[in-house]
Amino acid sequence: MAEEAKKLAGYAAVDNHVQNNQVVGVGSGSTIVYAVDRLAERVRQEKLNIVCVPTSFQARQLILQHGLTLSDLDRHPELDVAIDGADEVDAILTSVFHWKMCLNVEKDSSVLGQQWKKGVPIEVIPMAYVPVSRTIAKRFGGEAVLRMAISKAGPVVTDNSNFILDWKFEHTHNWKEVNIAIKMIPGVVETGLFVGMAERVYFGMEDGNVGVRDPPVN
Amino acid sequence: MAEEAKKLAGYAAVDNHVQNNQVVGVGSGSTIVYAVDRLAERVRQEKLNIVCVPTSFQARQLILQHGLTLSDLDRHPELDVAIDGADEVDAILTSVFHWKMCLNVEKDSSVLGQQWKKGVPIEVIPMAYVPVSRTIAKRFGGEAVLRMAISKAGPVVTDNSNFILDWKFEHTHNWKEVNIAIKMIPGVVETGLFVGMAERVYFGMEDGNVGVRDPPVN
Repeated sequence: MAEEAKKLAGYAAVDNHVQNNQVVGVGSGSTIVYAVDRLAERVRQEKLNIVCVPTSFQARQLILQHGLTLSDLDRHPELDVAIDGADEVDAILTSVFHWKMCLNVEKDSSVLGQQWKKGVPIEVIPMAYVPVSRTIAKRFGGEAVLRMAISKAGPVVTDNSNFILDWKFEHTHNWKEVNIAIKMIPGVVETGLFVGMAERVYFGMEDGNVGVRDPPVN
Repeated sequence: MAEEAKKLAGYAAVDNHVQNNQVVGVGSGSTIVYAVDRLAERVRQEKLNIVCVPTSFQARQLILQHGLTLSDLDRHPELDVAIDGADEVDAILTSVFHWKMCLNVEKDSSVLGQQWKKGVPIEVIPMAYVPVSRTIAKRFGGEAVLRMAISKAGPVVTDNSNFILDWKFEHTHNWKEVNIAIKMIPGVVETGLFVGMAERVYFGMEDGNVGVRDPPVN
């Protein structure tokens, strides 16, 4: 059921946002697998001229496996549309992401933290993970824990050779401010908070429909 | 003469800020070599109990070469004092640094950019260097150029496996705001701007004296 919902959301993002002659950014996560499936199907059926720019190793492999046109941010630094999976999205489209791109899926909340219990991922340079973790706990509460790997001993190492702290926050925050404050801590590379960057979010729902959420009008 | 000035500044920082039983952060650059020399001399002469935490590979090697006690940010996440070399410092102690720590030296300006012509170093994840460079030029003017290596083909790779853009800015900025704006660009790891973090700056001067600059009182 969860897989079906992800598929619906991934398909909806591609169907509603990808057009001919576009440069499409492809993020990572479980929903992206479905989005790339659908993208490949549309490129084949509609003979679209699409260039794909991955922002993760996973995306790069998916693009190659599907025979799509692979590029990179050197050759195509400007994306027409970017598709990524989010773990949770609140009422104003603040999302918990693994990399900063655009669009779709997973858990729908009015307030961040209702659904996604793993916390906010924060990418840090390995040397700095302890002081960053302490600074976050001291300034914002909760706990920021080094993410450990499952398929190897020791911590998860990101595609950029960094570590990940999962920040289990205790209460809701002004996410825009907290995001800036965390990113300014020396040693922080990226946060998984995605504040005001998504244009539209698609949720696959249990009844087989797709929910849509847009940012509030300011 | 420049070397003598660096030595004076490096010595002054260690003499004025290092005390017994401290954890001392050691940055990188040409002045740090003199600071570590002096630190080793004082530890030996005064039998100080000092733990050194390097923030670069260069610092780590210097600490080991001098037989100082080596630790890291895991074991000692809180530093009592941190010593680093800056390329240029303006009237309000905004400095151009290579890593964010504290204190001393190199070029004294009332406005940033008067002395240091190489620009502000910005550490970026390799994948993102082109979009980051374009974003900076578009939003803040000037040019952000990939730093190329001298001792190998291709770009400089940092201790954290990243690239460096040298941003040659065209005019002075509100450095605090620009620093935040640049760090918030996806793909930026650190900037070499050091806004309001230095407690005191030492300049070696041509007449053999040492200049001191403190932050303005707010």
